[in-house]
Amino acid sequence: MGLSGGEMSTNEPMTTETYDPKTVSLLSFSNAVPAFLDGSDTPRAYLERCIETIEAREPAVKAFVTLNLEGARKAADASAARYRAGRPLSELDGMSVGIKDVHETEDMPMQVGSPIFEGRSSGWDGAIVYALRKAGAAIVGKTVTTEFAFSTPGPTRNPWDESRTPGGSSSGSGAAVGARMIPAATGSQVRGSILRPAAYCGAYTLKASYGAINSLGGFPSAPSLVHVGFIAGTLADMWIASRCVSHIAGGDPGHPSLAGPPTLPRPEKPRRLIRLDTAGWAATTEETKAAFDEYLDTLAQAGIEIACRSDDPEIEAYERDLVTLRDVIALMLTYEGRWPLAMYADRSPELLSPRVRERVEAGRELTPKDYAAALEWCVAFRARHETFAGRAGGFITLNQIDPAPAGMPVGDVVYGEPSSVLGCPALNLPLLSVEGLPLGVQLMGFFREDRQIVANAHWLVHAVRGIVTPDRPSG
Amino acid sequence: MGLSGGEMSTNEPMTTETYDPKTVSLLSFSNAVPAFLDGSDTPRAYLERCIETIEAREPAVKAFVTLNLEGARKAADASAARYRAGRPLSELDGMSVGIKDVHETEDMPMQVGSPIFEGRSSGWDGAIVYALRKAGAAIVGKTVTTEFAFSTPGPTRNPWDESRTPGGSSSGSGAAVGARMIPAATGSQVRGSILRPAAYCGAYTLKASYGAINSLGGFPSAPSLVHVGFIAGTLADMWIASRCVSHIAGGDPGHPSLAGPPTLPRPEKPRRLIRLDTAGWAATTEETKAAFDEYLDTLAQAGIEIACRSDDPEIEAYERDLVTLRDVIALMLTYEGRWPLAMYADRSPELLSPRVRERVEAGRELTPKDYAAALEWCVAFRARHETFAGRAGGFITLNQIDPAPAGMPVGDVVYGEPSSVLGCPALNLPLLSVEGLPLGVQLMGFFREDRQIVANAHWLVHAVRGIVTPDRPSG
Repeated sequence: MGLSGGEMSTNEPMTTETYDPKTVSLLSFSNAVPAFLDGSDTPRAYLERCIETIEAREPAVKAFVTLNLEGARKAADASAARYRAGRPLSELDGMSVGIKDVHETEDMPMQVGSPIFEGRSSGWDGAIVYALRKAGAAIVGKTVTTEFAFSTPGPTRNPWDESRTPGGSSSGSGAAVGARMIPAATGSQVRGSILRPAAYCGAYTLKASYGAINSLGGFPSAPSLVHVGFIAGTLADMWIASRCVSHIAGGDPGHPSLAGPPTLPRPEKPRRLIRLDTAGWAATTEETKAAFDEYLDTLAQAGIEIACRSDDPEIEAYERDLVTLRDVIALMLTYEGRWPLAMYADRSPELLSPRVRERVEAGRELTPKDYAAALEWCVAFRARHETFAGRAGGFITLNQIDPAPAGMPVGDVVYGEPSSVLGCPALNLPLLSVEGLPLGVQLMGFFREDRQIVANAHWLVHAVRGIVTPDRPSG
Repeated sequence: MGLSGGEMSTNEPMTTETYDPKTVSLLSFSNAVPAFLDGSDTPRAYLERCIETIEAREPAVKAFVTLNLEGARKAADASAARYRAGRPLSELDGMSVGIKDVHETEDMPMQVGSPIFEGRSSGWDGAIVYALRKAGAAIVGKTVTTEFAFSTPGPTRNPWDESRTPGGSSSGSGAAVGARMIPAATGSQVRGSILRPAAYCGAYTLKASYGAINSLGGFPSAPSLVHVGFIAGTLADMWIASRCVSHIAGGDPGHPSLAGPPTLPRPEKPRRLIRLDTAGWAATTEETKAAFDEYLDTLAQAGIEIACRSDDPEIEAYERDLVTLRDVIALMLTYEGRWPLAMYADRSPELLSPRVRERVEAGRELTPKDYAAALEWCVAFRARHETFAGRAGGFITLNQIDPAPAGMPVGDVVYGEPSSVLGCPALNLPLLSVEGLPLGVQLMGFFREDRQIVANAHWLVHAVRGIVTPDRPSG
């Protein structure tokens, strides 16, 4: 367990596996379930294989801030007994999972990457954790987050190149899944904190529609744009985990649960996608741009119409709004620092990084009027986004400006911001590679139409990978 | 400090003061401020007068679960020094306030009326508490709430008749203000928990528009309809407290702060009000109905047009929706019990009342689809409410079916439910009396138009009371 910032040294041993989306597979839980049911495998044996990988890779990758392997073994044994009796609790009974250290668990502290929270525990499970336990999951440990999920990085490294960042703020969850330590882990996003680590680590993620998964019972900051969800090794595990917890714990109060079947929706080929540059394109490296352009060419060859800003003045106007959006989200997050961050700064400034203190001070300068104007902008922009609903299956863009950068800064967040503000579903699909590292394609759908965009994603994954992940079809 | 349910014995000494809205005054903080500024009074002396009343009445009224008088004295002394220097922090610098025991405070436990929370403390202030301290308030103690703010009543008694309930769930806040122990206290409402204790105890309250006051940092249940606010002895104190904390801590994330001036908006005579029966009329006692009808006659005589269901089929349709609303709110609150109440029930059922356990079990039977349908109903009903915005200043109805009933059940919640679902501003104005006990008139306005309905309330208060509370005019 450690909360130290962690200097990155580049002369330690590196992994040498190259990320090739056509051949690389991460862990799948769903694929193991038939063997649990026929008795040829058990959740406990699955967990022990996870633990072997954790023991091998955790010393260098540093994905976890706290482990509770005995608790996980106990849960996995209980799950095994249910499979023996033919009565699993849910689609994810027996899944080994990690919990981002912004959610509360009854058995481990919640430290949020900050010494202010060192050793703190409420003694209760947050909503997503409670739902996972009710579904029968085996909770392996708490994964590293950046300070308050936005500032100082933890010590975690990228599993595809340990000299590089795993991205943030769901750093440990991305790295643990990317390193095949576990099939899935929780994440949370306010700006780009689920999409980016998934992209850097070669994992799948769904940032579901705003409110679709109950976010209560964690770091009390609860900014208006907070979303919780899963980073997973396969699209199927990403979906079953998201859908299952959303149905057990509900969405955020006042929001419906994720709609759709309990298992992965069948593939649906999108007829038309809107390609977005977003504010990220200008900062994107040439090699990354080339990989994305080439990928869109293959989609066009497969008969999917790709529309873009030069085709349609409304898309051009939307693209221009995406540049303004950068300022809007920055203002909102700064304003929302007035509680609890300002309270922490009043009492213990020495325990906060300069970046957190700066956000607090900037927040004190903003007025309720500034914030109200930002909220109004968001309402109008969300309406603009939804006007495209009849005209395309969704939007396609990147999730990163470059492969994971070297050193500890957690990378540029720009591609994560649009869906954070829009509240629409967004996925990372780790379908490309640059410099032998994962490059993530982002699909964005329409608000509360998560099922449809996941079905489109399913089609895209099969198109690139063939049937390398034989996900069980939806029932 | 005590969490015991408290049997009500009727042979203890009773207060004999009769509630007459034309003559009775509760404590005013705003009226004391000029004396703080000219040095003829101080916040510390004000607090000591409050403490004298607490010592006299608290043994019978039992409004507080925890007191921190030394902490309050220290805060009041610091405030006095600021007034001496001519630099008060805000309109409520030096205000003695109580905190409902659903909000966290750094110096006292948060016990939510449940033995599950006995002695628990996060060590941090909730958002409304943090804002009060930043504004210079002196926090006197935590006030009694019912179990989880909806179930088993605490021991608190009605200050106008100690054999009767103060209402719930903000029982202690209503009673402490009604007994003149303090000028204001925080409350929270999901169903009727701010409006009802204010009505039973003869106090003013504003249940502000949904989201206008930051509700974070308290009981983690956070149901979708939760609102926080103030119960106060005067309309002016109610407004300055609500507006001030909303501007310091913000609204709930994603919601604008309460709009309006820092001091009480000037009186505005409403041209037209819609009189509502609501689902409460059928259960209302004849004497209470007569008092309300008589009051509406005086408003009509004063030139205010009173529209009602028999005048307008759209009002009739709205009234019928108010009956359906009872089922909708019951379903929503039951469904939302799946976290954290179900978690408490899983671990410690013996620490929960039968009513809480029943809600949990009923919640397990509901589906996400049931809940989604309820949410859709609410969206449509809110839209219907807003269609009246151009046609009337607001709605007028009762806040109680009868004077506070004897014994410990906290009374019928029916009149509080509409504004809880609608999210619109709603006030209790203690302008009437039945059986020598307070009878509250409710004004409901339009979403985020709090300032206007408070200005209308200001006019109504002056019309009934003359200028018995010479509130400082808005600047």
